[in-house]
Amino acid sequence: MDTQVVIIGGGPSGLLLSQLLNRSGIETIILERSSREHVLSRIRAGVLEWGSVEVLREAGVGARMEAEGFAHDGTWLSDADHMVHIDFHDLTGKRVMIYGQTEVTHDLYDAQDAFGTRIIHGVEDVAILDLDGPVAAVEYTLNGTRHRLRCAYVAGCDGFHGVSRRTIPAGKRAEFERVYPFGWLGILSKTPPVNDELIYASSPHGFALASMRNANLVRYYVQVPLTDRVEDWSDDHFWAEFRRRLPADAAAKLVTGPAIEKSIAPLRSFVSEPLRWGRLFLVGDAAHIVPPTGAKGLNLAVSDVFYLHQALIDALKYGRQAGIDGYSQRALARIWQAMRFSWQMTTMLHRFDGEDSFAAQMRRAALDHLGRSETARRELAENYVGLPF
Amino acid sequence: MDTQVVIIGGGPSGLLLSQLLNRSGIETIILERSSREHVLSRIRAGVLEWGSVEVLREAGVGARMEAEGFAHDGTWLSDADHMVHIDFHDLTGKRVMIYGQTEVTHDLYDAQDAFGTRIIHGVEDVAILDLDGPVAAVEYTLNGTRHRLRCAYVAGCDGFHGVSRRTIPAGKRAEFERVYPFGWLGILSKTPPVNDELIYASSPHGFALASMRNANLVRYYVQVPLTDRVEDWSDDHFWAEFRRRLPADAAAKLVTGPAIEKSIAPLRSFVSEPLRWGRLFLVGDAAHIVPPTGAKGLNLAVSDVFYLHQALIDALKYGRQAGIDGYSQRALARIWQAMRFSWQMTTMLHRFDGEDSFAAQMRRAALDHLGRSETARRELAENYVGLPF
Repeated sequence: MDTQVVIIGGGPSGLLLSQLLNRSGIETIILERSSREHVLSRIRAGVLEWGSVEVLREAGVGARMEAEGFAHDGTWLSDADHMVHIDFHDLTGKRVMIYGQTEVTHDLYDAQDAFGTRIIHGVEDVAILDLDGPVAAVEYTLNGTRHRLRCAYVAGCDGFHGVSRRTIPAGKRAEFERVYPFGWLGILSKTPPVNDELIYASSPHGFALASMRNANLVRYYVQVPLTDRVEDWSDDHFWAEFRRRLPADAAAKLVTGPAIEKSIAPLRSFVSEPLRWGRLFLVGDAAHIVPPTGAKGLNLAVSDVFYLHQALIDALKYGRQAGIDGYSQRALARIWQAMRFSWQMTTMLHRFDGEDSFAAQMRRAALDHLGRSETARRELAENYVGLPF
Repeated sequence: MDTQVVIIGGGPSGLLLSQLLNRSGIETIILERSSREHVLSRIRAGVLEWGSVEVLREAGVGARMEAEGFAHDGTWLSDADHMVHIDFHDLTGKRVMIYGQTEVTHDLYDAQDAFGTRIIHGVEDVAILDLDGPVAAVEYTLNGTRHRLRCAYVAGCDGFHGVSRRTIPAGKRAEFERVYPFGWLGILSKTPPVNDELIYASSPHGFALASMRNANLVRYYVQVPLTDRVEDWSDDHFWAEFRRRLPADAAAKLVTGPAIEKSIAPLRSFVSEPLRWGRLFLVGDAAHIVPPTGAKGLNLAVSDVFYLHQALIDALKYGRQAGIDGYSQRALARIWQAMRFSWQMTTMLHRFDGEDSFAAQMRRAALDHLGRSETARRELAENYVGLPF
């Protein structure tokens, strides 16, 4: 065999899995379609569950996160009448960490470089083969030449559009999907955050999220129709719309500036089952997508990786199959809980075009209930900081 | 004036309000369209929150309820994969009381008879007048003769189809509505309950509820399309459908028998704001309807009555207006919470025609989460046993 585990995809899932396996003495090769620079240019999530923080520490990539990340003890939910604080630490004893996915990925590349792990960029036409036999194979084209790697297992960490999920025959997959009738327009701006914790703002004009990366870099979003394009949104237009969706106290403190990145992402819930197909295992976005409202996308990838690295170590070092046999079910149980939470947060905070008069009242009542009920706040907090692995 | 408070509607809301006012020395007259026999023939709710139990005790009508009602410490939620117990008493320290609305109404009539309260049955063409002046009036026709009652206040306890809500000009009311695309087919049968606590059963065939009135009288329901008619459902058809929606253990214990009552009710969420219009106050179904899934209909009427009787006593005995001025807002805050809970229970347990593949998974995930999370069970239990008045 050429290596023990071939990992398709050099984003945070693939890098973290590789890192955890390498630290246990298991050899990996990572295949990535894009360049490292392109991977590191993608703006993604910024909220890490504490369980994710602990896995990153365990992977030996916690140092810069500890130094530069911001532990948040809570978050705010608002609408025109309510400003509800969810005190994660009081309610659950846990926190979340504000540390961008881009930074996590950067740290993982550095750590993998230190291991000398082969990360092959620019691969095309990946094919995953021989998943039922004793040795799996992955073929790919690099600079016009076809290559073949033989391995014990293949990890599909190649995202929603990757080849891994589609390697499972369509008739053997069950897919579940909810498409939401709106997207998020997000900007990055080198301005101080409007608040020291995130604000999830429901408003008559739609949802907005005030998030941040550090003391002088914000990540702000507004809900937009799916038909909108980035070109429709000047910076001024964005700031005006964002400001009127914020609670008044926050709006008064808003500092604006040029957007250094601006993009629109659709919101979708998606799960493909199972996560295992012979010697292939799906991880993260390759198998499931959440709307960003619950900050679960990267965190779910981390819990998938956590389960899978244990299963692969058990199989490759100790010859125990139970972890591998149980991976799909174990990961899916947690995935569906995050799906439920993300759907619920999305429904609770967004305005739906064409909704009846009752829908807006249910959003108001949900915030009102959160304000009144410690149990409701604890239920939200436990899900937000992350259910146990 | 002819009396201090004219109460439109001789169902449980009107009778309870009258009873509480009479006990504080305030005079009332109740106007009811139907006969007492007709009112007592209506089959309605059967689950009392503990707060409702305490109000009924305070009204002096608790004796038979204490003797014949069944205090339930919990309830069950099920689907094809889950059987989740919600232990109200462990989670909240409270219980609910199984005691039919018909019995509550019966007890209230007896208590009002003892007071000698005038309950005028068979009234037609009720008109509520002079709500802005110093003395309000209610006109009605009885046996072809027009009558007029002058009073300080009018309580509209005459249900969704009554005149009270429509007395508030349409332009001055805000109405919120959700119509669910299904109904409940309910039967009464003199058989022993399939379980000692209620079972809320979500199934691939739709929702079912196993409820009861006493040790030999059950109230069972199945979700049906709105297009179904009672005539479409033979007893055998009902029992077969009910059985296959129950969890297997319960289905095996099901005892069937003739249905002594069978009816279909649509499911609807509805709120009309405000609850006060000058000297008129809306109570219960006159202002709001919940789907029965959360067992909140009668209980919300009781909390409305509780708030209103305090306000009327303050105004009529002590000349204090604050209670009257605050009634609408105070009652609506609790109403919207019950609306939210009833909507959530309905969404979590029913199959919606034409739903996407994700919807059924969200129902499964909700039950799975309830099974795993004590906080989620506590959140449900606190709402089910009733939020504080």
